Amino acid sequence: MSLLVCITQRDNTKLLNELSAQLPEVDIFEWPHCPDLAQVEFVLAWNAPDELWTQLPNLKVVQSYGAGVDGIAMHLLPEHVTVTRIVDVQLTKDMAQYVLTHVLAHKLRLKQYFVQQQQGVWKPKRAHQGNHVGIMGLGELGQAVARKLIDNGFTVSGWSASEKCIDHVNTYAGQAKLNLFLANLDYLVCLLPLTAHTRGILNKSIFSLLPNHCVLINVARGRHLVEEDLIWALDNNELAAASLDVFAQEPLDSEHPFWLHPSITITPHCAALTSITTASEQIAENYLSLLNSEVLANTVDRSKGY
Amino acid sequence: MSLLVCITQRDNTKLLNELSAQLPEVDIFEWPHCPDLAQVEFVLAWNAPDELWTQLPNLKVVQSYGAGVDGIAMHLLPEHVTVTRIVDVQLTKDMAQYVLTHVLAHKLRLKQYFVQQQQGVWKPKRAHQGNHVGIMGLGELGQAVARKLIDNGFTVSGWSASEKCIDHVNTYAGQAKLNLFLANLDYLVCLLPLTAHTRGILNKSIFSLLPNHCVLINVARGRHLVEEDLIWALDNNELAAASLDVFAQEPLDSEHPFWLHPSITITPHCAALTSITTASEQIAENYLSLLNSEVLANTVDRSKGY
Ligand SMILES: NC(=O)c1ccc[n+]([C@@H]2O[C@H](COP(=O)([O-])OP(=O)(O)OC[C@H]3O[C@@H](n4cnc5c(N)ncnc54)[C@H](OP(=O)(O)O)[C@@H]3O)[C@@H](O)[C@H]2O)c1
Ligand SMILES: NC(=O)c1ccc[n+]([C@@H]2O[C@H](COP(=O)([O-])OP(=O)(O)OC[C@H]3O[C@@H](n4cnc5c(N)ncnc54)[C@H](OP(=O)(O)O)[C@@H]3O)[C@@H](O)[C@H]2O)c1
Repeated sequence: MSLLVCITQRDNTKLLNELSAQLPEVDIFEWPHCPDLAQVEFVLAWNAPDELWTQLPNLKVVQSYGAGVDGIAMHLLPEHVTVTRIVDVQLTKDMAQYVLTHVLAHKLRLKQYFVQQQQGVWKPKRAHQGNHVGIMGLGELGQAVARKLIDNGFTVSGWSASEKCIDHVNTYAGQAKLNLFLANLDYLVCLLPLTAHTRGILNKSIFSLLPNHCVLINVARGRHLVEEDLIWALDNNELAAASLDVFAQEPLDSEHPFWLHPSITITPHCAALTSITTASEQIAENYLSLLNSEVLANTVDRSKGY
Repeated sequence: MSLLVCITQRDNTKLLNELSAQLPEVDIFEWPHCPDLAQVEFVLAWNAPDELWTQLPNLKVVQSYGAGVDGIAMHLLPEHVTVTRIVDVQLTKDMAQYVLTHVLAHKLRLKQYFVQQQQGVWKPKRAHQGNHVGIMGLGELGQAVARKLIDNGFTVSGWSASEKCIDHVNTYAGQAKLNLFLANLDYLVCLLPLTAHTRGILNKSIFSLLPNHCVLINVARGRHLVEEDLIWALDNNELAAASLDVFAQEPLDSEHPFWLHPSITITPHCAALTSITTASEQIAENYLSLLNSEVLANTVDRSKGY
């Protein structure tokens, strides 16, 4: 049995070194350099080419190299293949800190003062009063963000697929409760996984349901957002501002209208970066679990798609 | 007995209305319109002209219209006069939130990303790792800021005049311990009162003692800072950046070099604004305490000057 790494569009040298250190006895190959694909039962993947999946007769586990699994073409995998993802305590903390920071930055008008500083303008204003943050997605990340915001005095509402009961969070579940969830928010944070149901969910109809002074924070995936709908909403005062860490195409094209939009704050997909060290530990553990026929960690429900 | 208000360089209409509502039976005058200065035992003041203090033979209490008393010329007041200040729960919370926000903003490189956004530059970087915040001044505000930072996972050290014991804070007292306090800080927050001992305390010698990657946050008074020393420190990499809410002269002069300095973040003295409502309540209470010969709240130690 060998471990195949197929993570495209990046240099994986450090990751491969780290994995070799964690799994000294294991044959680790990087696609497309693999002498015998029939030996491969475990693939560490992100945006692998479709043709890979037809060439692995003994594939058992696909480990996503990320917290999401939208970089894994699950519809191409045989039904019995297990899909796992990375769940990292530090990444989760970083995400909570990112969201808190961007909520506070809007509340305390940091960007407004920054622009006024460039213009030499002195214009004190009170901070925005709104304290109600809505979180779409109450999984690993959504719940950690909720906790952090509650600890900092915010009122938190959350929306998920299944009903939830979380201390100090007003919870709403399913499409039928979406309107109610959105009605009184000052900030809307997207932390959904990208699936057929959530693609394009941040669109005109949602923006119209939100209060006009609401601020959108998208830290999930670029394709949750219908980009032209965001510009429409901002330009028509259906939404006050947006902080975006993720984009349909990354890096964001240099001609993209988001760059210079006065109400959009851009960060370059840095909200919560996977640590090669922690990720490698988890990957190695899952690889050994497969070897020893033990239960794998952080498996994904393939029927749900996350 | 009557109440005299002498707060210069601002429109006090709202404040006077609020005070009249709180103290319907009391004669309230606004300097210089006061028929009988001998009737005045209680003055609400900020930056009053020096000559006022020689004209009040029966003065008993000077209430500062602020959290600090640097707007009160204490050396001109007879020794028996009591000086009080505003201590406001909401102002304290706002200050803690301001400091947390600006620490996080530096940590997560918000300004760097703002500038890169204006240039259309995509350049993800990890957040700064440093988590050690030093607070000069462990009074009402300093302690609240410490608590907030600790609750958010920061390591906090604090410096005050007298020895203190505060949960989870490494405390240092007096001039002799200043070096030790400064040696390992990632952020230095100034929340000292402005006195003869603290004027100009943020200077070259302190900046040289701090680690070069340290960020200064001054939210106390502009005159704590030697402005040219800050520019020297930033331009010579003795300090990484500064967030300033207060300035020797406010509003900051339109020609001031701070405005366009790439490592300085300016906010227009908005960290923690006094609420007219809460302040008026406290002023009214203190006025009634004087009338009823009761103990006044939030008195200042005139020998210390704060
Ligand atoms: N920007 C970054 O740097 C960064 C870093 C890491 C991750 N991410 C993104 O963050 C996403 C969330 O991560 P996670 O670990 O929190 O995922 P998770 O643990 O799988 O949680 C997903 C949550 O979304 C809810 N959900 C899924 N589909 C839904 C639908 N159709 N309607 C309503 N709710 C739905 C789920 O509801 P149930 O609980 O009811 O199933 C669950 O609460 C990842 O998929 C990834 O795309 C971004
Ligand atoms: N930017 C804004 O919007 C804003 C708003 C409100 C207030 N402020 C400023 O914040 C300042 C602090 O307010 P506060 O209510 O926290 O004051 P406070 O309760 O009087 O506390 C002052 C603290 O500073 C310490 N201190 C005083 N002189 C010192 C010296 N020479 N060396 C070392 N430590 C010294 C004191 O030490 P001990 O405890 O040992 O006496 C005390 O811990 C105010 O004076 C005001 O200037 C700014």
